[in-house]
Amino acid sequence: MQQRMSLVTLGVRDLDRARAFYDGLGWQPAGSPEGVVFYQLGGVVLALWERAALEADSGVTDGGGWGGVTLAHNVGSPEEVDEVLAQARAAGGTVAREGAATFWGGYSGVFIDPEGHPWEVAHNPYWEVTEDGRTLVEGTGEPAG
Amino acid sequence: MQQRMSLVTLGVRDLDRARAFYDGLGWQPAGSPEGVVFYQLGGVVLALWERAALEADSGVTDGGGWGGVTLAHNVGSPEEVDEVLAQARAAGGTVAREGAATFWGGYSGVFIDPEGHPWEVAHNPYWEVTEDGRTLVEGTGEPAG
Repeated sequence: MQQRMSLVTLGVRDLDRARAFYDGLGWQPAGSPEGVVFYQLGGVVLALWERAALEADSGVTDGGGWGGVTLAHNVGSPEEVDEVLAQARAAGGTVAREGAATFWGGYSGVFIDPEGHPWEVAHNPYWEVTEDGRTLVEGTGEPAG
Repeated sequence: MQQRMSLVTLGVRDLDRARAFYDGLGWQPAGSPEGVVFYQLGGVVLALWERAALEADSGVTDGGGWGGVTLAHNVGSPEEVDEVLAQARAAGGTVAREGAATFWGGYSGVFIDPEGHPWEVAHNPYWEVTEDGRTLVEGTGEPAG
């Protein structure tokens, strides 16, 4: 199995609401068939799809809440963390943790999308965010961010 | 907010077991501090971290099971789907859905890692997987895969 990931699908209960939120971040959807919305995020795709359909398709049982997966968006400075959190709040997200210094030596906060999916927004000075948007672990990367 | 994703963190209850599974897929971890394991997946990082710590860090309440997020790994042919599912089973994963034709015109199956996180393994003839491992939505992409 090659060491890569193609797609992250977020199960949603209200597709229009979820799409409005991600569009509100300034993101542009790709061509998407009825009932699903795709965003091309660099070399990975983010999909929004009905949560009950995704549950059945994935062969799992929905615990109904958060299930142990958190996404992250890294930026180049602490100031950008605060800017993205403000943008997410303006788009209808909830800021669960304001930007602040972290135990691992960076700066981060968390927003939660209208469907309950958390995104950490982080500046990790040990990692590199390239001009074309890739995030690269340096040799001594630090946790969760 | 730039249209990209940096990191997917999977909460785990047994880090050694989880790492053994992903290492068993043939993946090589990056430099990782104590208590976390990072895998560089193209331009995105996959992290394994204690689920209770991730819950607290993310400002959410753990529903205890699956929470509406499914990852996917796309490959170039139906045969490769079956090969990856066999590899995941050999590494200690559970195959929740054997490879088969899908309603959206592709071929896919699902494995679940030892921590309960599902991965769809898919051949989507409408999408492109590039030589360097990026997955690109074509104009008329199809759902979930």
